[in-house]
Amino acid sequence: MTRTISLITDYGQRDGYVGALKGVLRAAAPNAVVVDITHQIPPQDVLAGAVAVLTACRDFPADSIHVVVVDPEVGSDRPGLLLRAWGQWFVAPDSGVLHFALAAADAEVRRLNPNLRQPRSAGTTFDGRDWFAPAAAALANGASIDDLGTPTDDWLELDLPQPTFEPYRWVGHVLHIDHFGNCISDLPAPATNIRGTTRSFLGADPIGPIRTAFSAVAEGGAVATIGALGTVEIAVNGGSAAARFGARRGDRVELLFPSPQPTPALPW
Amino acid sequence: MTRTISLITDYGQRDGYVGALKGVLRAAAPNAVVVDITHQIPPQDVLAGAVAVLTACRDFPADSIHVVVVDPEVGSDRPGLLLRAWGQWFVAPDSGVLHFALAAADAEVRRLNPNLRQPRSAGTTFDGRDWFAPAAAALANGASIDDLGTPTDDWLELDLPQPTFEPYRWVGHVLHIDHFGNCISDLPAPATNIRGTTRSFLGADPIGPIRTAFSAVAEGGAVATIGALGTVEIAVNGGSAAARFGARRGDRVELLFPSPQPTPALPW
Amino acid sequence: MTRTISLITDYGQRDGYVGALKGVLRAAAPNAVVVDITHQIPPQDVLAGAVAVLTACRDFPADSIHVVVVDPEVGSDRPGLLLRAWGQWFVAPDSGVLHFALAAADAEVRRLNPNLRQPRSAGTTFDGRDWFAPAAAALANGASIDDLGTPTDDWLELDLPQPTFEPYRWVGHVLHIDHFGNCISDLPAPATNIRGTTRSFLGADPIGPIRTAFSAVAEGGAVATIGALGTVEIAVNGGSAAARFGARRGDRVELLFPSPQPTPALPW
Repeated sequence: MTRTISLITDYGQRDGYVGALKGVLRAAAPNAVVVDITHQIPPQDVLAGAVAVLTACRDFPADSIHVVVVDPEVGSDRPGLLLRAWGQWFVAPDSGVLHFALAAADAEVRRLNPNLRQPRSAGTTFDGRDWFAPAAAALANGASIDDLGTPTDDWLELDLPQPTFEPYRWVGHVLHIDHFGNCISDLPAPATNIRGTTRSFLGADPIGPIRTAFSAVAEGGAVATIGALGTVEIAVNGGSAAARFGARRGDRVELLFPSPQPTPALPW
Repeated sequence: MTRTISLITDYGQRDGYVGALKGVLRAAAPNAVVVDITHQIPPQDVLAGAVAVLTACRDFPADSIHVVVVDPEVGSDRPGLLLRAWGQWFVAPDSGVLHFALAAADAEVRRLNPNLRQPRSAGTTFDGRDWFAPAAAALANGASIDDLGTPTDDWLELDLPQPTFEPYRWVGHVLHIDHFGNCISDLPAPATNIRGTTRSFLGADPIGPIRTAFSAVAEGGAVATIGALGTVEIAVNGGSAAARFGARRGDRVELLFPSPQPTPALPW
Repeated sequence: MTRTISLITDYGQRDGYVGALKGVLRAAAPNAVVVDITHQIPPQDVLAGAVAVLTACRDFPADSIHVVVVDPEVGSDRPGLLLRAWGQWFVAPDSGVLHFALAAADAEVRRLNPNLRQPRSAGTTFDGRDWFAPAAAALANGASIDDLGTPTDDWLELDLPQPTFEPYRWVGHVLHIDHFGNCISDLPAPATNIRGTTRSFLGADPIGPIRTAFSAVAEGGAVATIGALGTVEIAVNGGSAAARFGARRGDRVELLFPSPQPTPALPW
C-alpha cells in the first residue's frame, strides 16, 4: 500500500524548511506519497492549524499520516503527540494544533517517543525535520505503534468559546477567517427547509437568510452560506467579509429561526 | 499508465481547502499523480486562471487531467465543464477560466454530469472538493466519457480585446501581469530578424527593440522580450514593469516595424 | 530506482510558470517524483536561493536532482551548470545560486550542454522550462554525464563577508532572514557546555546566552538559538527579530565567550 504523508506547517514557503522535511521523508520513506496541505499557517497560530486539520484531513485515504507542525515551544520539553483519529494518523507537537482531531470519537493518543529524534545539525529548533518527519517515516514504514509512543490522557486543549443552541436562536463565533475573507463560524448548518427564512447576524450586522451561493446576492453584497466544514459562514460576493465588517476570529455569529429548531450536532 | 492530475485554483494556500481536494483525489484515484500548478490565482479572477492554463497545461503529458477552479458563481446553477483540448482533459466550472483551452483546434466540450457530486458536508460552496475532484478521479479511473458529461456547444467566453495586425504596426494589450511585474501581451513574437529594429511601446512609453534577455539593458531599465507564451512582454531588468509604468491588464502594447510584416498566428 | 527531482525557483506561485516546469518533467521523466522546495525566493535573489539549497538539499536521498532557477541573466549567454555535490545533482544557471553547493568537498562542476535546450515557444526568457527541466529529465532518465556537460573550473561565486574566529570572540553576519523574521547567522554552534554563558549580539543589541528554545524567554523577548543550519540565529519569541531590530542581511552577529574556544568548522 502506498501511504500518504501530508504536511501542515507554519514554515512559510520562502525558505528551505519545507524542503528539508520533504528530503527527510523522501529518504526515509521512499514509498510514501508526500502531499502539501499548507505551509502558510500564520506563525505560531495553533488554532488556524487546527482548523486546517479539520478542513482537510478527513478527506484523505484511511491510515494517511498527517505531519502537523505549529509549535511555539519547539526546543522546550513540551511533548510530541502521535494521534489516531478519524481513521488517520497525526504526528504533531502538543501545542493545541490537533485540538479538533483529539476530540474525535475514535481518538487514541500517545506521547511521541523522544528516541525517534534524528538531528541533522546542531540546531535545537527544527523538530519538524529532526523528530516529526522521522517519526512519520517510521510509521509509514510499519514501525510498531508501541515503539512510536506510549498512551497518554494528558494533552493541551485550546480554550475556545462554545456555541449555544436555543430553539429559536443559535449563537456561535467566527472560528476562522479564510483566504477569501469568509468568516467561518462554529454553527452547524440548519435544516435545509429553514435556511431561506433564517436570519443571520455577524456581530450586530444583519446578513440575511442562508443561501446556496455567494452569487445569490449582488456583487459586493453580504451573504450567509454553508461552507466546507458544513457550518454557517458569512461572506461578501466577490469581496472579503472580514474586510467589509472588520471581523475577527471570535466575533459573534447569530442565527434566528422562525420556528423552533432541535439542538444540532457539531460537525466535528 | 500513471495519470497526472493538476490543480489550478484561487483557494490560496493558508487554509485546508487545497488539502481537502488532494485528500479526495488521493482517496478516489490513488494511482494518479497530483501536481500543484497554482492556488494563488487572485480570488474570482477567471482571466488570470485562463492565462495560467495557457501557460502551464500544454506542457503536460497527453491525457493529463487539469482541475481548474476559479468559480465566482459556485453553489448557483452555473454548469460544470468537461473539456478535451490540446490532447488533455479539463474539469472546471463554466466561468471563463477555460477561455483559451476552449478555443483549441481539437476542443470537445461537455457539460459535467451533476450526478458526479459527492458532497462531504452540508456545505454548498465547495464544488472543487464535492464535484470537480470526484469527476477528475472518475476520469482518471477510466469512467466512460458519456457518463461524465453530455456534449454541449454552449459555454461562457471571456470578452477580451483582440489585437490588430497591420503591416507596419501591431497593436495589442497586456493580457497578464506576472509575479515579477512583467507585462505579458497578446502580441506574438515578430520574426527573429526584425526584433532588433522593432520599436515597442507600453501605452505611450517607448520601450525599445525586442531583446533576448532582461539583462540586455542596464539594471532598472525597461526592456521588451519574448516570454513563456511566445508573446511580447514588457519587463524591467531586476524590477517590476507593472510598478514602474503603473501598468494594468488591458493596457495597450504596440510594435512598429521598419518593414512590412505578415499577419501572425496567435500562439494559442 | 525512483529519482527525486526538486524545484527551487523565484517564479512565485501566482502564474503558470511552475506548472510548465512540472509539465515538462512529468512528460519527459514520468518515473521521477517531483518535489517543490520553494518558488518564493525573492525575484533574482541568488543568495536567498543559495541558502535554500543549503537548508534543504542535503536531506534528500542520494542522487536526487535539484533544479535551482534564480537567474537574473536568463536569455543572455551566461552558462548553465551541472553540479555533483553532497552526493546529489544540481542543474542551475551560473548565477551564484549554487554558491554553497559549489564549495562542497565532493563538488564536480560541468557546463551544461546548450544542445539540451528544448524551446516550447518563441520565448527566450524561460530556461527553466526550456533548458534546465529537460536537462534534469535527461539526467533522471540515465543520460551520460558527458553528454550533459563538460567539466569546468570557472563559475560565479558570491562575494560574501566571512566570519572571523578569535578564542574569546566570534564575529559573523546575518546570512538570511527567514519567514519568521529569524536572523540566521554564519556562526557555527559553540560547544554545548558554553552556550549558556555565551553572550550574543545582533549589531550593538545584546541578545543573551544561547538557548535551546524560543520560549526560553518571555513572549516578545529576543533570544539566540541554534537553527536549521546548525548556526546561531537571533529570534524573538512569538515575533520577528528582523522587525524588532530592523535587521538586514549582512548585519553583524557577535558571540563573546567566558573561556577560549577553538576555531570551529563551518557547517557547509
